Amino acid sequence: MKIVIVGGVACGAKTAARLSRICPDAEITLLERGQDLSYANCGFPFFLGGEVKNRDGLTHMGFGPARDAAYFDDYAFTKALTGHEVTSIDRIGKTVDVNVAGTGEVKTFPYDKLVLATGASPIRPDVPGIELGNVFTLWTLRDTLAIHEALNEANLKKAVIVGSGLVGMEAAEALCRRGLDVTLVDALPCPLFAVAGLEFGAMLQSQLKKNGVKFYGGESLKELKGNGTVHKAVIKAVNGDSERDIDADIAIVAIGVRPNVGLAVNAGLEMGTKAIKTDKFGRTSDPDIYAGGDCAESENALTGKPVWQPMGSTANRHGRVIADHIAGLKTGLDGKTGFGGVEGTSIARVFDWSVGKTGLTFEAAKEAGFSPIEILTSNPDLPAFMPLSAMLFSRLVADGPTRQILGAQLAGPGRVDKRLDVVATAIKGRLTVDDLADTDLAYAPPFSSALDPITHAANALRNKMNGMKTYSPAQLKAKAEKGDDFLILDVRNGNELELFGTLPYEIRHIPLGELKEKGRTIPANREVVIVCRAGVRAWSAYSTLAARCGHGNIAVLEGGMSAWPYEILHKEPAETKTKPQT
Amino acid sequence: MKIVIVGGVACGAKTAARLSRICPDAEITLLERGQDLSYANCGFPFFLGGEVKNRDGLTHMGFGPARDAAYFDDYAFTKALTGHEVTSIDRIGKTVDVNVAGTGEVKTFPYDKLVLATGASPIRPDVPGIELGNVFTLWTLRDTLAIHEALNEANLKKAVIVGSGLVGMEAAEALCRRGLDVTLVDALPCPLFAVAGLEFGAMLQSQLKKNGVKFYGGESLKELKGNGTVHKAVIKAVNGDSERDIDADIAIVAIGVRPNVGLAVNAGLEMGTKAIKTDKFGRTSDPDIYAGGDCAESENALTGKPVWQPMGSTANRHGRVIADHIAGLKTGLDGKTGFGGVEGTSIARVFDWSVGKTGLTFEAAKEAGFSPIEILTSNPDLPAFMPLSAMLFSRLVADGPTRQILGAQLAGPGRVDKRLDVVATAIKGRLTVDDLADTDLAYAPPFSSALDPITHAANALRNKMNGMKTYSPAQLKAKAEKGDDFLILDVRNGNELELFGTLPYEIRHIPLGELKEKGRTIPANREVVIVCRAGVRAWSAYSTLAARCGHGNIAVLEGGMSAWPYEILHKEPAETKTKPQT
Repeated sequence: MKIVIVGGVACGAKTAARLSRICPDAEITLLERGQDLSYANCGFPFFLGGEVKNRDGLTHMGFGPARDAAYFDDYAFTKALTGHEVTSIDRIGKTVDVNVAGTGEVKTFPYDKLVLATGASPIRPDVPGIELGNVFTLWTLRDTLAIHEALNEANLKKAVIVGSGLVGMEAAEALCRRGLDVTLVDALPCPLFAVAGLEFGAMLQSQLKKNGVKFYGGESLKELKGNGTVHKAVIKAVNGDSERDIDADIAIVAIGVRPNVGLAVNAGLEMGTKAIKTDKFGRTSDPDIYAGGDCAESENALTGKPVWQPMGSTANRHGRVIADHIAGLKTGLDGKTGFGGVEGTSIARVFDWSVGKTGLTFEAAKEAGFSPIEILTSNPDLPAFMPLSAMLFSRLVADGPTRQILGAQLAGPGRVDKRLDVVATAIKGRLTVDDLADTDLAYAPPFSSALDPITHAANALRNKMNGMKTYSPAQLKAKAEKGDDFLILDVRNGNELELFGTLPYEIRHIPLGELKEKGRTIPANREVVIVCRAGVRAWSAYSTLAARCGHGNIAVLEGGMSAWPYEILHKEPAETKTKPQT
Repeated sequence: MKIVIVGGVACGAKTAARLSRICPDAEITLLERGQDLSYANCGFPFFLGGEVKNRDGLTHMGFGPARDAAYFDDYAFTKALTGHEVTSIDRIGKTVDVNVAGTGEVKTFPYDKLVLATGASPIRPDVPGIELGNVFTLWTLRDTLAIHEALNEANLKKAVIVGSGLVGMEAAEALCRRGLDVTLVDALPCPLFAVAGLEFGAMLQSQLKKNGVKFYGGESLKELKGNGTVHKAVIKAVNGDSERDIDADIAIVAIGVRPNVGLAVNAGLEMGTKAIKTDKFGRTSDPDIYAGGDCAESENALTGKPVWQPMGSTANRHGRVIADHIAGLKTGLDGKTGFGGVEGTSIARVFDWSVGKTGLTFEAAKEAGFSPIEILTSNPDLPAFMPLSAMLFSRLVADGPTRQILGAQLAGPGRVDKRLDVVATAIKGRLTVDDLADTDLAYAPPFSSALDPITHAANALRNKMNGMKTYSPAQLKAKAEKGDDFLILDVRNGNELELFGTLPYEIRHIPLGELKEKGRTIPANREVVIVCRAGVRAWSAYSTLAARCGHGNIAVLEGGMSAWPYEILHKEPAETKTKPQT
């Protein structure tokens, strides 16, 4: 059986490796248009930032050999050909035509099964100056080495990164680590908006600022200027005419990628909404042609709808499924279990913070026809007495009627990835919020609190589903901007107000411990929004006011002051006050 | 409604706090026989080891107040009485009798609902010398402060810890961090046997040794000797008569705890196998009496059978369920969702390593009537090119016929807790091994590999379920000890054999890349066990030998050399060889 695989990076390489193990009669040919095979592209920003010291780590096996054609021959019974660009597919004759780079040679390869793993390519915006020197995308090994060389050879000082998606954020951090003065620009209002959303996006913006990265949201690249090499980026407001110039002697454009589907389109294969349409075994509309990795769509595990998730992890899973199906392997309980779809998980490190999402955001869940309920919570990720304890902010979404967990967004200096994986697994298992709250997560003080932050989040969401009224930070801010009347009841202790500041609204301060006595002094005719440090005391105060003081119009600020990403009022420090005026 | 809670540490305090929020007409009385309330006992070893610098962190709220009677009054509408030991329950009259410490006073408290959160107490073995000075258990705040004082005041140099369960292991590390010379003794063969099992237990033993902790397995405490204070522990083999003396000027006895069920037994409440029997709402056989935390049993989420899991996390979840039920709160989808049981998760840090388990071990699964299949795998927890990449060893168990995930044991310097929580959630969601392999876990190089170690483990288990024959390290060792004939095929590269050594058996060395040519030279009449560094190349070699060379009797060593916890042969280093003999 002749198997031809087009594309030799993630899904293509994985398909070849697995096929060679489970399908000994397969004659595998891997055609790669570039010069490099099976490189670890997710590692590139970390190489550029200097964290990955050894470049071979990105292209070689841990035990020595480079993943080149000889490697594929020796280890994966695969004839790998680089510089071989497939130009067309003859679906009737079951052959592909190939241009061999540099030689003008044209070859034809017959196949019994064809696997398209053509990947994606970065979008280069069509703006003046895009062809200047030191203007890069960051996608392939060649891109990476070119940036690396530019950083090493020229004395580059200022960088502009256009696009604050996963690649843009990682690139910004990498160049910052290299000592460059970095400006990050995005057409969306916040960094990493698709993952972080508005509130966590605002928090990330503070993190960027703290680390010296300037961020301009709602602006896009209009032009690059320079003389041979880039010297300046001209940035334009998305809504409006204002422009600004940013000095830059290197520019990285990371505004997204497009799936490489030209070959598939020309062959008449059915397209999905964004990439090649496949079934759960990775088959395209032609049963002898498979597609996987960045050029193919997946199913969203929650909505059942097609989604395009160009991620290395998805590509690897696609590869296994495709190989299993080609080999005719029995899979799963029914012997024909295919790809279960994606939950839509992604994560990024942003200096000392991490941010990630899985499943559906509140908005996406609504759009998909669910009746979502969401809560934002703040928790230390370890008991507060442990020295490495750090805050974790969570937005957990469940469906109201079925109580099914739909998704989470997580951010903070605390350990985001662990809880993200828990929620991804909960989604896979169709857990309800009650199941999640009841899951027996690992507890010892070096690892978690007795009730893990995600357990807390699930419990808070259950409280909300049981009738606790809450506002998210964005909702409260919008309420204030609308001019709604409300009174903030701040139930923290006095020193906390001084140390951490207060909300910029009308405040009544009664520490929780005094609320029993003073609760009835709160005006019954005004809406009261209760705030504390992280939300727990506010929930106690809410119960006290509602049940014991009979207040009928109260709400809790989700996540407390810890998660408030907007303006905070600070009292003038005492020293400043007593300083003599000069 | 009068609620009386007996015991004010974990479950009792949680029940009171939640009840105060959701049940405003509850008149809550908390009776604690000790002097301290709601302390963070899981933090004690970390306080003793000096990691937790601030003792108040164990007993105070982050925002200031100590969790004392005044706190419970002000913040939880709870009358908390310390030094109040409940001596009997009158179930007909619905009262409890109380002895007030130090006063001889006897009080009676009426209840509508009674909550038993009486906890557990450490077992003190009845051996000579157990009453000597500087012999401690490590359970309560008083225990901890006494040990702390002893460490600070006397110049203690040598410690013996009896029992290597969670508390014993943490105590050993704590005293080691304080500079003491620590010996750990356990009647079971390996440290932390119940969590780690044999192979990971052997690995832990190496970790202890590396950190200077002596471990004696299969030995138990016979006697403590000393003159006022302890000076020596006499340890005796469990199987046999051999004895040894261990110099020790402090001894911590941590051989386990017993649930405090006397009150419940005397009141005629139904007992389970080890602790108080309860239903999913925490009710005992008397519907007006609840029990939760360390004195009560839970249901195992997989077997449906009662288990006793004395953990702070379980206690906290019990507290919420009990409070909800007393308050008559609607819970979950059916309005009456109770406690979902425990998966049996536990974790410990052991110096730079972590070890944990969740669900059923292979043996426990068999005993529970499943047909388990297990595999041991080794993986780096981050891509090998990332500087913080560290090994993670996993034993994943699934049921053969249903493919349901039943449990995992995890160990290593890599991040154990994350994958443990994933498996705990997978068990909760009744995921199959195929679902788990397909779960969209968060991937970026600072957090995981493109295929997470637990995805790899699930895939390896699927390979095994598809017919790949394997041996665990213990199985191979047993095979060798039985005298079975087999040949080891080591498919690593030459330098790896020199660097990391080889198995102490008959070895044939063919690097994987040369197997295509040399595979047929392997004797067809002998059983071949293939080994590589971590198991991946061995799986490739297995396929090559089976499918392309037609070898019919081959197996893979699970986890490769990385996970081999027994003897390794090292070639004499070249320098040594060439050194002149003097």
